This record gives sequence, structure tokens and C-alpha cells, in this order.
Amino acid sequence: MQETRYDVVGIGNAIVDIIGRCDDGFLSKHDLAKGFMRLIDAQEADRLYGLMGPSIERSGGSAANTVAGLASFGGRGAFIGRVADDQFGKVFWHDIRAAGVAYDTNPATSGLPTAVCLILVTPDGERTMNTFLGASTELGVREVDAAMIAASKVTYLEGYLFDKPEAKEAFYAAAGIAAKAGRKTALSLSDAFCVDRHRADFRNLVKNGTDILFANEKEITALYEVNSFEEAVAAVRGECEIAVLTRSEAGSLIVTARETVQVRPVRVDEVVDATGAGDLYASGFLYGYTRNLKPADCGRLGSLAAAEVISHIGARPEQPLSAIARQEGLITR
Amino acid sequence: MQETRYDVVGIGNAIVDIIGRCDDGFLSKHDLAKGFMRLIDAQEADRLYGLMGPSIERSGGSAANTVAGLASFGGRGAFIGRVADDQFGKVFWHDIRAAGVAYDTNPATSGLPTAVCLILVTPDGERTMNTFLGASTELGVREVDAAMIAASKVTYLEGYLFDKPEAKEAFYAAAGIAAKAGRKTALSLSDAFCVDRHRADFRNLVKNGTDILFANEKEITALYEVNSFEEAVAAVRGECEIAVLTRSEAGSLIVTARETVQVRPVRVDEVVDATGAGDLYASGFLYGYTRNLKPADCGRLGSLAAAEVISHIGARPEQPLSAIARQEGLITR
Repeated sequence: MQETRYDVVGIGNAIVDIIGRCDDGFLSKHDLAKGFMRLIDAQEADRLYGLMGPSIERSGGSAANTVAGLASFGGRGAFIGRVADDQFGKVFWHDIRAAGVAYDTNPATSGLPTAVCLILVTPDGERTMNTFLGASTELGVREVDAAMIAASKVTYLEGYLFDKPEAKEAFYAAAGIAAKAGRKTALSLSDAFCVDRHRADFRNLVKNGTDILFANEKEITALYEVNSFEEAVAAVRGECEIAVLTRSEAGSLIVTARETVQVRPVRVDEVVDATGAGDLYASGFLYGYTRNLKPADCGRLGSLAAAEVISHIGARPEQPLSAIARQEGLITR
Repeated sequence: MQETRYDVVGIGNAIVDIIGRCDDGFLSKHDLAKGFMRLIDAQEADRLYGLMGPSIERSGGSAANTVAGLASFGGRGAFIGRVADDQFGKVFWHDIRAAGVAYDTNPATSGLPTAVCLILVTPDGERTMNTFLGASTELGVREVDAAMIAASKVTYLEGYLFDKPEAKEAFYAAAGIAAKAGRKTALSLSDAFCVDRHRADFRNLVKNGTDILFANEKEITALYEVNSFEEAVAAVRGECEIAVLTRSEAGSLIVTARETVQVRPVRVDEVVDATGAGDLYASGFLYGYTRNLKPADCGRLGSLAAAEVISHIGARPEQPLSAIARQEGLITR
């Protein structure tokens, strides 16, 4: 097989996060489901932004966060996703390249502005996301860089792409290219509501065409419409090569046809902002996976990365994850 | 005299900060003078941004930070400054209004984009600023809201306005309106290089038309071209009603014709990012001043606000300053 140029190419929505704090009462008053992601249009984005307190802006996007985290470990990351040719587009472009990730999807010069996610962080650190997809919805098959995908060990796709027909097509095209090139495909289920919107497609995709599945407890139980985590584990076992199931402070579970590996969480003093916990867990896991580490160590790297990102505002790492992994003896060079 | 609607109206550049970390070697390599502000054009802004690591964005601007801080104490703040009708313009607009500040300068619908300041924060917490003034340079006399100024106890002007001829005119117009309405005028010297560029004008302004002067040690020695802080104190005494001189970890000095009040600094565990220290000191001082507190208490409020803002990234307060002042017994209601 051909040499690879990248460990992971992420394909997903290219988003700038607008992060503000609020109390639980604010969420209730405005009918926002705590801990979930909802899609909003430009008008609702303006309305909700007007209600938010002073905020900060920081690059985000689920798969983008994952490859930025992978690069922070020292991995070779690439990204495909669409911004507009505007200020937030420049911010996204700058940050992902400054993180060391290969990125050259052409910015849209007309149409909708760069995607934003209005993230409300409650005092417990939980985040509630409101996404205006903007230029990201224009991601289509033409943006799927076949050479980049064929040159990557893993093609990592976020489930959120299913929310727009064009992006869903791009998703399938990318998965097809990866399979044809003999590469691995990873899927993140993204959000329980997102799973609910696309359950049949996702179930089919997990069984046919996914090597590595990432899901949290809510997502995996939503996928199989079961009431307990244990039932979900039984349902997913053997459906794909590896299912990686995260459970916040209860750690994570790595499930293959033949084994189940329990991974302890890494404790943090205070959850400042949970945004990006799942994305960064995937960074660590994939960094280990693409270096053929054993599943327990892949999971440990995932937990370390998640712990770093929830200890500050924003979904991109602030400390080099390579240094953290080295301290733990998981990276030796 | 007419009732006031505002305690302080700030007039200054309307800027979004782009904040990234770097080491001292980066500053040396790119000939950046540590701890100072320099003006850059669009091309240099693009070049330097391309060299910076992953960053975050947050509203800034010197006078804007001051009135946002004043509002956080519970004061009545207003702001005049110009953004463009673009994404960063919306960010600036949102954040200052969400902070409770009255702001309605019309955004520019053509011309340059909203101002940005590329802020490089070194491991010691010191910040080095590179400002592309963009739409802020178009602030002119037409934006000077006479009714707003006449309705404010204090008109607070940042020295940075002198860097563009139109803005300088706006500055003088605003000071004239405040004087005619029998209100107070406060001036911040902004930056030692800025003082160097406009020394004669600033000296004249301090003597004729300034009630309250804010300067740090470097700025006040640059203003009077003296080698020691003591000489600068002697030079400024009696030039205006009150000179407020800040000296970082050495605290601050409040100098009037007849007295000198020494204010102890408020210690912080770690200076994370010094951006906004002077701006927020002015917030606290002016909050106290407009409530007729005694100079020592005004200074103490200034120190508290500065301590809050240097303990995190960005130049706007994250904790309500009113709560901090209440804990210290400086606000009783």
C-alpha cells in the first residue's frame, strides 16, 4: 500500500464558536435543551446572540477540533470543511493551520457567512450549542479532496454532516474514497438529537463502512433505541471494528467483537467548559490508534486530551498534548 | 446643572483583540518592542497573523474596556467609536452592549474593516500589541454625540485617538462639548510611543482642558522627558485637577496640587495576561470618582479591577466587579 501523508483527515463543519456564560434559568427561559446541539437559522442566531452576555470567539467544529488535537499530540492532521471569505473564515483558517493541520478547502466567495456556534456554558461547565451552519452547508462532493483522503490512514467524519443533503453526499463520497484506497473510516455520532434525525442512515453506516465508531452514552442508546448503556454495548458489539463509547466522569469503554476495555477517566479539578470533550477524546484515541498502540493506551490518550480541554474555555487545546502524553509515559520520543 | 444620564462616556478606537501566546524569542525575531503598541497596516496585519499561533478573539479597545469595566462595577457607561458592518463589528457591538454600555455609533458600511489588535502574550503575562485601526480611523467629528457627552459626568478620551487626524479632531470636539456643558474631561496617555508621537499636543492638553489624567510610569516620564518617576510626579503636579499614575506591581499614585496619595497594588497569584490593566484601573477609579469617593478608595477600586483583568486572557472583566468591590466594603449597597 502507498505511504500515508496524514494520520487523520477530518471532514466536518468549519465553525467559529462564540462562547458566553449563562445560568440554568436562561436555558429554561429560552427553551434550550441543556447539553445538546440544535441548528438555527441566521435570524435566530442574531436573536439569541442579542440575548447572550459578553462572549469570546474561538475556532471550533467537531472534526476540526479532533484534528487540531491530533496535531497537538504530534500527529499528522488534515481537514476538509468550508468557510466563507470573511473575518470568521480567516479566523478558522488561521487557527487550524497555526495548529499544524493541512487545510486548503476553498473559501466560499458568495453565499452564506462562515458558520458560528453560539455556545452557552452553565456554571457546572456543561455546554449548550446553537449552530448556524452558514457556509458549511455548502460543503459538497467537489470539496472532497480524493488525494488527501487516499493519503490518510484514517478518514474521520462527523455525524453533523448528515444535517444537510449536500454535506451528506460529500460524507458518502469521502467514505467511498477511503474504502477504495484501503484506508480506515471513523465516524462520530456527534449528538443524540442528530442521531435521532438520522438513525436509520447511521445504523446502516456503522454496520457497513465504519471501522471506528465514536459515541457517548446518550448517542449510542439513541442509536439503538435502548434504555441502558449495557444494552447499547451489546447492540454495537461486532457491528464495526471498534466502538469507542465515552461516559464523561465514568470514563470510556472500547468495544470490539472479542473484547471490552474499560478506560478510567482523568480527573480535573473543575470542569470549566465541557465543549470539545468528545472531540478531543477522539484526538487522543486516533493518535494512539494510528501508532498501533494498544486500545487501553489509545483510550488513556483520549482521556488525557479530554481532561485538558474541559479545564478551560473553548474546544481547542491550550497546552501541547504531546507534553502531557510524554509526562504520562505514553509518548516516549 | 442638568441631571446626568451617564457617569462616563468613553471615546476611542473600537477594536477586537486577537490574542495568542508566544515566547520572547518570537518578539525579538520579528522586531516587536515588548510591552508597547505599534500601528500596522492591513498587509502587515495579515503577515503577522500568519506567523501567530492559534488565537482567541475578544472585544477590546482601551476606552471601550474602561467603560465596560465601569458598567461591571454598576456604573452608567456610554461609548463612542467606529466599527465596520462586518463580523468583528458585530462582535464589538454585541459585547459592549451586553456589558450594559450605551453604544450607538453607526457602523461604517464601506471602507476599511473593523479594527483588530494582534496581541502577543509572553509567558510572563506581558502583552505586545499590533493594531490595525481599520474602520476606527474613520471616527470623526460627525460621530461625536454632543447630547451623550453633555449628559455624562466624565468624558474619557484615549490618547490613541491622536494617531489619526480625523479622530484627533473628534477628540478636541468632544473635549470642547464636555467643557461647555460643565462636565469633567479625563485623558489616558495610552502608550509611551504614542506620547512620543504627540508630546507637545498632550502636554498642552494636560494643562488646558484635562481634569483627570491617567498615565503609567513610562508614559508620564515620556511626557515630561525626564528620567525618573519622581521628576515626572513633580512635573505633572498641579497641571490638571488629578493625575493618576500607575506603576504595575508598585501600585499607583494619585497626585493633586496639594496632596499625594499612595495606593497599594492588589496582588494576584499569576499575571496571565496584562492586557487591559491600565484600562481597568481607570474603570475603578472613575467609578469611585463619579460617586465622590475619596481618592484612596478610587485608587483601591482601580487596583481591584486591574487585578481581576490580568488574572485571565483578555481585557474585559470576567467576574462582576461590583461583587469584588462589595467584598472589599467599597460598595455598600
